[in-house]
Amino acid sequence: MTRKISISVIGGGDITTDEALIAEEVGKEIALNNATLICGGLGGVMYYAAKGAKEHGGLTIGILPGNAPDDCNDFIDVPIVTGLGHARNVIVASSGDAVIAIGGKLGTLSEISFALIQNKPVIGINTWNIDFKSKGCNGIILAKDAKDAVKKALKVISK
Amino acid sequence: MTRKISISVIGGGDITTDEALIAEEVGKEIALNNATLICGGLGGVMYYAAKGAKEHGGLTIGILPGNAPDDCNDFIDVPIVTGLGHARNVIVASSGDAVIAIGGKLGTLSEISFALIQNKPVIGINTWNIDFKSKGCNGIILAKDAKDAVKKALKVISK
Amino acid sequence: MTRKISISVIGGGDITTDEALIAEEVGKEIALNNATLICGGLGGVMYYAAKGAKEHGGLTIGILPGNAPDDCNDFIDVPIVTGLGHARNVIVASSGDAVIAIGGKLGTLSEISFALIQNKPVIGINTWNIDFKSKGCNGIILAKDAKDAVKKALKVISK
Amino acid sequence: MTRKISISVIGGGDITTDEALIAEEVGKEIALNNATLICGGLGGVMYYAAKGAKEHGGLTIGILPGNAPDDCNDFIDVPIVTGLGHARNVIVASSGDAVIAIGGKLGTLSEISFALIQNKPVIGINTWNIDFKSKGCNGIILAKDAKDAVKKALKVISK
Repeated sequence: MTRKISISVIGGGDITTDEALIAEEVGKEIALNNATLICGGLGGVMYYAAKGAKEHGGLTIGILPGNAPDDCNDFIDVPIVTGLGHARNVIVASSGDAVIAIGGKLGTLSEISFALIQNKPVIGINTWNIDFKSKGCNGIILAKDAKDAVKKALKVISK
Repeated sequence: MTRKISISVIGGGDITTDEALIAEEVGKEIALNNATLICGGLGGVMYYAAKGAKEHGGLTIGILPGNAPDDCNDFIDVPIVTGLGHARNVIVASSGDAVIAIGGKLGTLSEISFALIQNKPVIGINTWNIDFKSKGCNGIILAKDAKDAVKKALKVISK
Repeated sequence: MTRKISISVIGGGDITTDEALIAEEVGKEIALNNATLICGGLGGVMYYAAKGAKEHGGLTIGILPGNAPDDCNDFIDVPIVTGLGHARNVIVASSGDAVIAIGGKLGTLSEISFALIQNKPVIGINTWNIDFKSKGCNGIILAKDAKDAVKKALKVISK
Repeated sequence: MTRKISISVIGGGDITTDEALIAEEVGKEIALNNATLICGGLGGVMYYAAKGAKEHGGLTIGILPGNAPDDCNDFIDVPIVTGLGHARNVIVASSGDAVIAIGGKLGTLSEISFALIQNKPVIGINTWNIDFKSKGCNGIILAKDAKDAVKKALKVISK
């Protein structure tokens, strides 16, 4: 098998400076650990995570909602063109061996839901704080920072 | 225009007796108000909502995740066969003029997320209790029972 | 089971007068035979098929590529809002118990392909003339006119 | 922009020895020209194209219909997990800057249709021989062998 480990990074398109720094460091850590970064290919968390990965020699995949490959941000190696609109969130959530969520709003929440439905590990940094377990659902693994998030993602993947 | 008002009813496949009763009454109220019921076409809330609607002369549409039209429950007039798996949740959330959520777990949460992203009104009965507004997102309209939920759905649609 | 027989009608958005007449008569025959009409919900063949069905008391479902229910034509009872762009063609092809193709270009060809993959009967009127069987694939059942097409569709469904 | 050129290779899962050789050489030529190979990630043409690319240092992406990343063949670097069934064909057709079709049956025909709808160049080797232009549609560029196909794909992309 030549298949590489991949990690999906999800979060808002409209973000704070702090979230940008975290996303960039998450991308960097993913690259330094030889994993592929998968994201939604656009701005905000997607942009900074791809930037961090790309600047450290990583491979970056952007799963786009629209029809134009050039809509992807400047740090995406391979745009996947879905034309599916919001439904592309399912693919972002499903394609990583683990998912790291940074902040985020409703799109991120839909991705967290889809990842958890599929028993995919989700590591969260300052993201939706929801008591999933009281509903009998899988929950999110909390991380304190970017390094901790990628470390925890790799640990659950290797199990 | 011959287009009818339609309401999507979402919720778990594995439900309590209380949720079944609520779903059935929601379906009944939708039918009595001449609206079309849209749901995921399978069991649990989808089954009882379709039963309630069908037994009161309503029209019922089931948007199925799989490839077999006969997978739909016994109270669906028209199965829509998507073959899209979990991604069919986007279509359930998008096709109603309003969405009523009864209980539910992660699939329901993904549908609530997609509906709110699209500024679709979501009325909730004993469903996810999340502080959407603290994230700057649209929130859920709470309803106390089935009748109240359908009344509130029709009211926001008619605006 | 309350589930009704449904027939998907596919064909171009930009059509000839002759195709419009055929589409309208196909819609009429579907309605007179108590089947549900499923189509892509927009113009051309979709418009005239829905018009024919609706003017003869039929039920019409339009599976839309975009996000706005009001994009559907004036003869659609229930718009299904997918937001999936071209991928909604899979759902149109999959949701009818049989598919009737009238003329059409590449979108229609994609729908014929998807229907045949799923062993769905496809009845064609002046549509793509392709030697499917030389490839070892299922082929299209040819019909000479609208009445013949609906008759053949109902016959294969009832088998 | 770090974005690389990518080429989608499509064709049957059940193929002849000749088609396997062509697919493998197409994959090799894609890799030698520093383009990314995109395919459906499974067997037949997808397997041999990925093998050819991978054995010559290329990058390979497999867009899977199912939910399990490990369903991909042994020469895929990055499985994209869609869970969309046949609808994933739209993504395969949309994600390459050009599409090369080798033989193939109905799935391939659906992908050719989707690529041509989007004005994507399609290069064909022993694939569907359809008179698209008589329908006023874009047609396929014919290639005599693997090398010729990749050369023609790169030429139309660079325009």
